[in-house]
Amino acid sequence: MISQKMQKLVQSSSVIRAMFEEGHRLAALYGANNVYDFSIGNPTAPPPEEVTQAIIETLSDENPIAVHGYMNNSGYEDVRTAIAEHLNGIHGCQLHYEQIIMTCGAAGGLNVILKTLLNPNDEVIVFAPFFGEYANYINNFDGKMVVVPTDPDTFLPNLSRFEDSITPKTKAVIINTPNNPTGVVYPASLLNEMAQILEKKQSDFSSSIYLISDEPYRELVYDATQVPFILDYFKNAIIGYSYSKSLSLPGERIGYIVVNPCADDCHDILAALNVATRILGFVNAPSLFQKVTAKILDTTIDVGIYQKNRDLIYNHLTSLGFECTKPQGAFYLFPKSPIPDDKQFCEIAKQYHILLVPGCSFGCPGYFRLSYCVSYEQIVRSLPAFEQLAALFF
Amino acid sequence: MISQKMQKLVQSSSVIRAMFEEGHRLAALYGANNVYDFSIGNPTAPPPEEVTQAIIETLSDENPIAVHGYMNNSGYEDVRTAIAEHLNGIHGCQLHYEQIIMTCGAAGGLNVILKTLLNPNDEVIVFAPFFGEYANYINNFDGKMVVVPTDPDTFLPNLSRFEDSITPKTKAVIINTPNNPTGVVYPASLLNEMAQILEKKQSDFSSSIYLISDEPYRELVYDATQVPFILDYFKNAIIGYSYSKSLSLPGERIGYIVVNPCADDCHDILAALNVATRILGFVNAPSLFQKVTAKILDTTIDVGIYQKNRDLIYNHLTSLGFECTKPQGAFYLFPKSPIPDDKQFCEIAKQYHILLVPGCSFGCPGYFRLSYCVSYEQIVRSLPAFEQLAALFF
Repeated sequence: MISQKMQKLVQSSSVIRAMFEEGHRLAALYGANNVYDFSIGNPTAPPPEEVTQAIIETLSDENPIAVHGYMNNSGYEDVRTAIAEHLNGIHGCQLHYEQIIMTCGAAGGLNVILKTLLNPNDEVIVFAPFFGEYANYINNFDGKMVVVPTDPDTFLPNLSRFEDSITPKTKAVIINTPNNPTGVVYPASLLNEMAQILEKKQSDFSSSIYLISDEPYRELVYDATQVPFILDYFKNAIIGYSYSKSLSLPGERIGYIVVNPCADDCHDILAALNVATRILGFVNAPSLFQKVTAKILDTTIDVGIYQKNRDLIYNHLTSLGFECTKPQGAFYLFPKSPIPDDKQFCEIAKQYHILLVPGCSFGCPGYFRLSYCVSYEQIVRSLPAFEQLAALFF
Repeated sequence: MISQKMQKLVQSSSVIRAMFEEGHRLAALYGANNVYDFSIGNPTAPPPEEVTQAIIETLSDENPIAVHGYMNNSGYEDVRTAIAEHLNGIHGCQLHYEQIIMTCGAAGGLNVILKTLLNPNDEVIVFAPFFGEYANYINNFDGKMVVVPTDPDTFLPNLSRFEDSITPKTKAVIINTPNNPTGVVYPASLLNEMAQILEKKQSDFSSSIYLISDEPYRELVYDATQVPFILDYFKNAIIGYSYSKSLSLPGERIGYIVVNPCADDCHDILAALNVATRILGFVNAPSLFQKVTAKILDTTIDVGIYQKNRDLIYNHLTSLGFECTKPQGAFYLFPKSPIPDDKQFCEIAKQYHILLVPGCSFGCPGYFRLSYCVSYEQIVRSLPAFEQLAALFF
């Protein structure tokens, strides 16, 4: 007798699990090398060697009781200071350790932020296509997700629809740039316009609306693309960051929240984030990895690995006739499905041993997502299968 | 503008923070050695050397992408298999990896379990005194906490009150043995009686009631005390385990859930625990520490450290006139306050630089909690202060 909420969630999750199992089934039938799984976002770029070095250094230099022990629920003060100074150095901001809260990845961070902010039925705006977990995170706290479309050519938010969707119940807006699933990076001009709209609506409704920037892909950008720093654009900005992709540590669950020091009720928010971290059962971000990531703040994986993948698969698919916005960051393509029914298209692709995720999983039917954080060799091997698939439509 | 729920939680948390800050203030005034902080449960027994060895071994033997990468939300299959086999070896049960879900400590595990089970207004029974976080965890999912008293001489549940408190809305019962804050271990005879009551009520109400056993102190027992294995006593049993105390790794957030294979709706529960782990934002238990703890399943800290502490402080306090049930496990004393107002007593103790937690924080006024997971030296230094304090009352 599981809860009613969970019954529905288990049911919808079984679709993803079914795809995962289908991948295994196909691999068993045809050999792993003849199945092209582009369905999941599990990084294949190896973690930098500095990670292992930092672990060993921490274990040999520090008292194990301190390394593996409890600290303030918001994280070690020295780690938070190091992150604040790192961000100040890059972005010229004035952060202090108190505005940094260590989290169990960005997923943990987003839940802690939403627990802090949402009363039941408060509205949270997301832009389609969006990372499907946002719906679950908002639902965890009985918030109401409001979906605003993006421009189908650029995948940038439709600002007039955005403006119309803001109500007195709007408590937060979630953006994700570089974006999963489109790879788009929001330019400064767009963020400026979004901030102006938010400021006007806050004034109209005498409300505070928080702009939550989900940034696990911050460092994964190509062609010298710059990712604007959201704290420069809007007062009520909160960042959820993760090392999962920048250091290829998704299993370790380590990231942090940044609250703009000038945000409305900043002091109360920081106190509540601390308590929410504890009572949601995170207690604190994993202690060893707090210390390890703080030692290597300037280190990232080799982003060239994903750029090479992007170039190969993007060029191949567009040359075959697929329509696709060129991703500037993250490690996904979000091409248009050649037939209106994206689920059916993904089923057809499966016949060619290609595993893709239909756009409807991201609130955006008529498209499909392809994760290119796979090995370059898998992409090379998959090219003829894409040719056969494309030949059906173009 | 933080949420209304969080406003209240921040307010109540400020009491604990105030005590923490008072400790710092006193230490600054009188020197850290002259302040006797018995308020928190932060283990001081060092993690076994095997932990560091297992980390280094894992880093040198395994592919870093696998060590730090995503796995099934329920955890690595080989880790879960090792835990199942470890428990089968000790307890003669028949667990399979599928019934083990890796969690971010017991706090994460309890939240995942309650998310899985609770509909709004479902009732969860706890026994006072209880770990105060249970109230928050139950409240996270809009459950209703029902408090049943224990016998004041033994701190074992009052079974007739327990029976009377079970209603058709009772979804779960949380037990914690060895117990925080009393140190009591529930004997087999009591668990048998509790199971009989639960079975009768399940039959009366045609309901399933889950007995959640919160077991972070399982290995911390003294005088050869045996902790009965709850799966042997009741079909609908679910264990929340943590390595925080057994390996002194509280900062690493690593533990697991065990679901009795014969529990009602076991298959659905396991599927829902997997999904709840993901959507609550845990995603998975920290990956490196899954592998590390699985390598050293037979290892624990030196429990003798805490036993020595217990003997010193228990004997001293009782010789001074304090009434106290002798703890069989965990690392807390829960003596009777010499005056009815436990908060006032803790304030008086503070004048002697002794920091204690009033029993009302555990739903049990008239008592106080003393954590003896501190250094032996701190206990020795504190003895004269306790003598002065006791002289006021006895």
